[in-house]
Amino acid sequence: MINDAAKEFLLPGERLDDLQRSGLMILQDPKRFCFGMDAVLLSGFAKAKKGDLVMDFCTGTGIIPLLLSAKTEAAKIYGLEIQEESVDMANRSVLLNGLSDRVEIKAGDFRDAVTMFGASSFDIVTCNPPYMKDEHGILNPSDAKKIARHEIYGSLEDLILTVAKILKQNGKFYMVHRPNRLVDVISCMRAAGIEPKRLQMVHPFQDREANMFLVEGVRGGKAELRMEKPIIVYKEVGVYTDEIYDIYGY
Amino acid sequence: MINDAAKEFLLPGERLDDLQRSGLMILQDPKRFCFGMDAVLLSGFAKAKKGDLVMDFCTGTGIIPLLLSAKTEAAKIYGLEIQEESVDMANRSVLLNGLSDRVEIKAGDFRDAVTMFGASSFDIVTCNPPYMKDEHGILNPSDAKKIARHEIYGSLEDLILTVAKILKQNGKFYMVHRPNRLVDVISCMRAAGIEPKRLQMVHPFQDREANMFLVEGVRGGKAELRMEKPIIVYKEVGVYTDEIYDIYGY
Repeated sequence: MINDAAKEFLLPGERLDDLQRSGLMILQDPKRFCFGMDAVLLSGFAKAKKGDLVMDFCTGTGIIPLLLSAKTEAAKIYGLEIQEESVDMANRSVLLNGLSDRVEIKAGDFRDAVTMFGASSFDIVTCNPPYMKDEHGILNPSDAKKIARHEIYGSLEDLILTVAKILKQNGKFYMVHRPNRLVDVISCMRAAGIEPKRLQMVHPFQDREANMFLVEGVRGGKAELRMEKPIIVYKEVGVYTDEIYDIYGY
Repeated sequence: MINDAAKEFLLPGERLDDLQRSGLMILQDPKRFCFGMDAVLLSGFAKAKKGDLVMDFCTGTGIIPLLLSAKTEAAKIYGLEIQEESVDMANRSVLLNGLSDRVEIKAGDFRDAVTMFGASSFDIVTCNPPYMKDEHGILNPSDAKKIARHEIYGSLEDLILTVAKILKQNGKFYMVHRPNRLVDVISCMRAAGIEPKRLQMVHPFQDREANMFLVEGVRGGKAELRMEKPIIVYKEVGVYTDEIYDIYGY
């Protein structure tokens, strides 16, 4: 239910979506990048303990900080996003959900995160990054969807090296990405000193290739990976598995 | 059916097992290391084209060369094994199956493979290696099972570096290993110039962690991994899934 008070936070063209979790709502603009199942699955895969300090890189409209505020007892959850318009929408979502004491969305480039937040300062870092390499140069850097989908502002390697710097020793990093980049992700993580410890594949159907994976890494962790049971999204066309309903919280 | 002719190849203590595939039989000694499902799954995952030259490292009693002789049209399949007793058993299996023209098992250390076979000489290399690191030193190097299970004669890194040398450019490497070593395998492969291209997890049950994985790498391949549908071994306790029966060839 969208009440009149919530409507005051909307700008023209924006819509308010119900996150089906603790009454949370999120502002989105259908003309810009809207969050997908990957962000929701990442928020279910990530673990934060009571009192933890959490950072979400490439936070977009703040979907992961919003969900983590409901799913964990983290003390404070920051989001960092390079697109000012997304930051503005995310902060209005924080306000309308009454989460200003626990969630804070900042505008900035993740490559400046050490300067902005300090080294070794977070217990948990999460990221649902742009999936595609920027192999063709910046054709139109003002395109909000392009920035959300391509590594225009920093590569995967830049991202993981920065995560390694802002994580505390033994701090945890949670990321979602596509299988075609699995080798890049795993190799970069180990090279940066964030050891991959837990990996989970997401398959649209039981008998189909995976189209996403979730990974947990530990800064300074011992080499020893666990490969979790696969997540299967649909039991038949158009019908989610029970597990997906559980993660979404319906 | 074990006929009297086949029995002539057995030494005391050995047994003859039916591979359920093209009438193939294999000699094994229950006191030594016997092949497991991992070798059978690897022989189903590996692909060889007509006329290919194939090498199987750590071949043991020759299970993978025997199965590949039936499953592929490879011209010649070599096996390399450090334990002389296993080589002797493997060669008697080759003889009793009448495969001396296509399969040849050699005694030797894989670290000497470039000297023995030449650089860039194979289209395909397969390996079901020892899974465990040799972290405690050689307590009893004469123990056949220990040698089959621990990296006593060469580490995983030694193995993959050697594979990269004996593979032709664009040649393919197929390996089975345990998930706890996935990061080691993938990192070593990329560092050696064998790009992981296809990965498949094996889960004992649908809702359990994986206990093996299969990987295909291409020497000099482009970075782009596909994550195949998971293999599930049992549909209920003691009952294989149809897929496992297919791979075994029952």
